[in-house]
Amino acid sequence: MAVITMVGASMMGCAVCVPLCDRGHDVRVVGTPFDRKTVESLRATGLHPALKLELPRFAAFFHDDVGAAMEGCEVIALGVGSAGIEWATDAIAPFATSSRPIVMVTKGLRCDGTDLLVLPDVVRTGLGERFHPVALCGPCIAGEIARRAESCVVVAGRDPSSRAAVAAVLRTPYCHVFESDDVVGVSVCAALKNAYAMGCAFGIGLHEKNGGRAGSVAMHNYESAVFAQAAFEMQRIVRLCGGRDDTVLGLAGVGDLDVTNNGGRMGRFGRLLGLGLPATEAIAAMEGATLECLEILRVMRDATTAWRGSGRLSEPLPLLDHLAEVALDDAPVAMPFDAFFR
Amino acid sequence: MAVITMVGASMMGCAVCVPLCDRGHDVRVVGTPFDRKTVESLRATGLHPALKLELPRFAAFFHDDVGAAMEGCEVIALGVGSAGIEWATDAIAPFATSSRPIVMVTKGLRCDGTDLLVLPDVVRTGLGERFHPVALCGPCIAGEIARRAESCVVVAGRDPSSRAAVAAVLRTPYCHVFESDDVVGVSVCAALKNAYAMGCAFGIGLHEKNGGRAGSVAMHNYESAVFAQAAFEMQRIVRLCGGRDDTVLGLAGVGDLDVTNNGGRMGRFGRLLGLGLPATEAIAAMEGATLECLEILRVMRDATTAWRGSGRLSEPLPLLDHLAEVALDDAPVAMPFDAFFR
Repeated sequence: MAVITMVGASMMGCAVCVPLCDRGHDVRVVGTPFDRKTVESLRATGLHPALKLELPRFAAFFHDDVGAAMEGCEVIALGVGSAGIEWATDAIAPFATSSRPIVMVTKGLRCDGTDLLVLPDVVRTGLGERFHPVALCGPCIAGEIARRAESCVVVAGRDPSSRAAVAAVLRTPYCHVFESDDVVGVSVCAALKNAYAMGCAFGIGLHEKNGGRAGSVAMHNYESAVFAQAAFEMQRIVRLCGGRDDTVLGLAGVGDLDVTNNGGRMGRFGRLLGLGLPATEAIAAMEGATLECLEILRVMRDATTAWRGSGRLSEPLPLLDHLAEVALDDAPVAMPFDAFFR
Repeated sequence: MAVITMVGASMMGCAVCVPLCDRGHDVRVVGTPFDRKTVESLRATGLHPALKLELPRFAAFFHDDVGAAMEGCEVIALGVGSAGIEWATDAIAPFATSSRPIVMVTKGLRCDGTDLLVLPDVVRTGLGERFHPVALCGPCIAGEIARRAESCVVVAGRDPSSRAAVAAVLRTPYCHVFESDDVVGVSVCAALKNAYAMGCAFGIGLHEKNGGRAGSVAMHNYESAVFAQAAFEMQRIVRLCGGRDDTVLGLAGVGDLDVTNNGGRMGRFGRLLGLGLPATEAIAAMEGATLECLEILRVMRDATTAWRGSGRLSEPLPLLDHLAEVALDDAPVAMPFDAFFR
């Protein structure tokens, strides 16, 4: 039994509260200024509007009541969108102590003009070097863990006691938790998979565009070749950032890429691009859904441009480059297969 | 332009003839004694009964006419089922010369009581050490390559000139060919993926059994956790056999596993097991479809038993062991997630 305060009422943030509640913890969720309607709904009925699911009745707080939500808090969790990470860092700063582990379901990357930064390290920079935020990653669709479907997740942190504490509060019969010390590798994979899953889904759209029935078997060879190149490029980028190979071959790498292909928004967006919609139209057709892939592709374009300029990156990333051309520059899909695996 | 003789009229054997014909090669297919009806159909109409597709009109020969099919042959191809590999080795032996590269679409493993043998090495043992059969693998569903859907394949051989020759005859605008020298790693992955894809599909059946609609999003976290553990165990087995890590992270590893999940028989069989059918009933429900996963699980049980006895294998393979219990021993599905990634 622990007191756990989740800052941010995102789908994944609130979904993770389900195993936490099932373990009997005292769970509090604090919305961001953008989460007002979600908090109102959670308070009134327990319904999470984006998850479209009634959740266990944990305490829900508005953003200006963060102090009350933090009373007696033993684990701080961050469940904001990636754009809110600086706000969330400021919000938890007065309450962060080295005896309160911090766990983040927020995923994303930043580029400071030279280096690629993972969000746990962005938070660490904001709070101080003595903090070691733990990343919660792996193949975990929010709607499934919120429905208690069996799931395996990774908690990655440099401080063994922090990550063990996070693993301990989260572990339930349906939520299997694995520990890793590769914060960078796990976080880089968790972000990149959004971009690469978009590309794997091009084949679905191309198949339909070519007259194939939706759902019929016809361009899986294409999709899986892109999947393999995605894994190959993810490893290259993880290595450049100082992460480990085995992370890419595990839950946080190919596992998360696989689940994002099968159950995610990125796949639906990639299908539209494969169908031949220019990126601007495909974005409009997604009706305001968060498209993490676009942010990741922008950050990666900045980072790879800087790395190529400085000579740090000499190997090609033809899939990533093509995905950026399609999604950011409105270029048509034309997969550069012959440039793969070099 | 080359003369290419494919021994065996299997789906994949004949599917690969499509790019070969498109390249303008003189392609001949020789059936096995079990392929008589297929050869008759190919001769009469070009229809391949199992592919359910009319193929380019290459020359089709009955098994007793292999001599005529080999006249002027420049590349020998093997497209028999794995059970026919000894027959095929004997059939090509009189025609095998070191100037005729041998390429195999036949995949599988044998255990000699101590070692796991990949089929290119079984053929090599039969023909002589001077031969270096090339394995053709990767994420390539027969029905897709036969319909000229864009595909990436791997040709793996120890002899650079043989594999380059095979790559050269096969390469077309829609068939992208990548070379590898890791015959063992590529062949081990190509076989293992059948067993592991069966396990990834348990989640589909479990979801339906639990009341979920077929096709709805509900146990993708489960499927992808199994996918990641499959990749982890494939790497462990590939290393034990002397193959390379990068093979597992490439087309022949995670790429082929992904395509087999998405478009293969193994997935349909795994779904039935996830639904709760005992293996004997699930096999019956597959109505005579070749279930490569059963053969692979039997061979791997022999091999891992031998390796554990000799101390060669000390690390656990909990997923593989569970798949064998379910498919070979009629045990119920109960995924040992907490034993994963150790």
